[in-house]
Amino acid sequence: LKRKNIPSITINRLCIYHRCLEKIIEAEGKKESIFISSSEIAAITGINSTQIRKDLTYFGEFGKRGIGYPVINLVRELEKILGLDKKWSVIIVGAGNLGKALARYRGFQNRGFLIKGIFDKDPLKIGKKIGHISIYDIKELEKFIRDKNIDIGVLVVPAEFAQEVADKMVAGGIKAILNFAPTHLILPSEIKLQNVDLSIEFAGLTYYLSL
Amino acid sequence: LKRKNIPSITINRLCIYHRCLEKIIEAEGKKESIFISSSEIAAITGINSTQIRKDLTYFGEFGKRGIGYPVINLVRELEKILGLDKKWSVIIVGAGNLGKALARYRGFQNRGFLIKGIFDKDPLKIGKKIGHISIYDIKELEKFIRDKNIDIGVLVVPAEFAQEVADKMVAGGIKAILNFAPTHLILPSEIKLQNVDLSIEFAGLTYYLSL
Repeated sequence: LKRKNIPSITINRLCIYHRCLEKIIEAEGKKESIFISSSEIAAITGINSTQIRKDLTYFGEFGKRGIGYPVINLVRELEKILGLDKKWSVIIVGAGNLGKALARYRGFQNRGFLIKGIFDKDPLKIGKKIGHISIYDIKELEKFIRDKNIDIGVLVVPAEFAQEVADKMVAGGIKAILNFAPTHLILPSEIKLQNVDLSIEFAGLTYYLSL
Repeated sequence: LKRKNIPSITINRLCIYHRCLEKIIEAEGKKESIFISSSEIAAITGINSTQIRKDLTYFGEFGKRGIGYPVINLVRELEKILGLDKKWSVIIVGAGNLGKALARYRGFQNRGFLIKGIFDKDPLKIGKKIGHISIYDIKELEKFIRDKNIDIGVLVVPAEFAQEVADKMVAGGIKAILNFAPTHLILPSEIKLQNVDLSIEFAGLTYYLSL
């Protein structure tokens, strides 16, 4: 099996399955005896059950015919597959409202995304703290990424500065970028990029409001 | 055709196609002569081209065999389908960092999501402004929603207050809620709910970092 060849759309669905199973555990408790069938996952996620079975067999045979998938075990396997069982070092560039909100977002720490620092160019912000996380001078960005072996950079600067900051992250040795700036970044192919567009979240709602 | 019966996963994919076509227009300009095939959309989005053709025929025959879909026209049709050709009245509850960031997010206004007010219970915040948007007392929430006929409420309060605020939105007559609080809301079935989990954006990246 070549993991690298799994299409990114399958990975997106694996994230959805993982989230769905986590919610079941939140509701039912962490009992080893809970099983779920592909048609139950289908009913919750809206993804076709044949597709679900196909996606999960990429990684081996988790389920038992007629019983379904053991929920706790499947969550653990998906966490391993998705790299969510590890700790990741993260920095945020941009100490505006969104950068501050992300630094305080409890969901990140809980899932192993450890925010090591925030960077900004504003002298009034440099040296201050957001919660327990320090704000550093953006001039130190490259060295910080290299010295602390940072995995993921979160980009929350205005669009006109995004490429310049991304280039500095790459020069420091960042491995992946989560980009909130509404701009198209040009990066070396080995750097993983995820663009976040918050207005997409609205689009799903307005369809139903238009019916 | 019964629009109500279209599965939500198809709607999600329509949002993805819409965003993909918008990016093509950004890159190529707004020329009526641009066409795109389902296999080109597939290459960009990672969604299977058979699936794409199937999704788009829900709404009629946009494309021409051997030529593809006219991009400008397809975007317009998708906007009509998704309700993105209309203006929507939005309020934000919670004037913390994330609430402020969302109020300033240019992407919303550009897409017809008009933010009419921000609500908070902090007397130090009430009466202030974020950009040109006023912060109101949360006590006025229900009446404001009713009087101004607000469509969508954005919930960015701490998890422990989320259900209480959501209930007030519903009492005021809100039609849909975009929930950033990491909690499970219980709502009447006619209210559309979209939960946003920002840590999901990371999950796609860590898969590739784990390879």
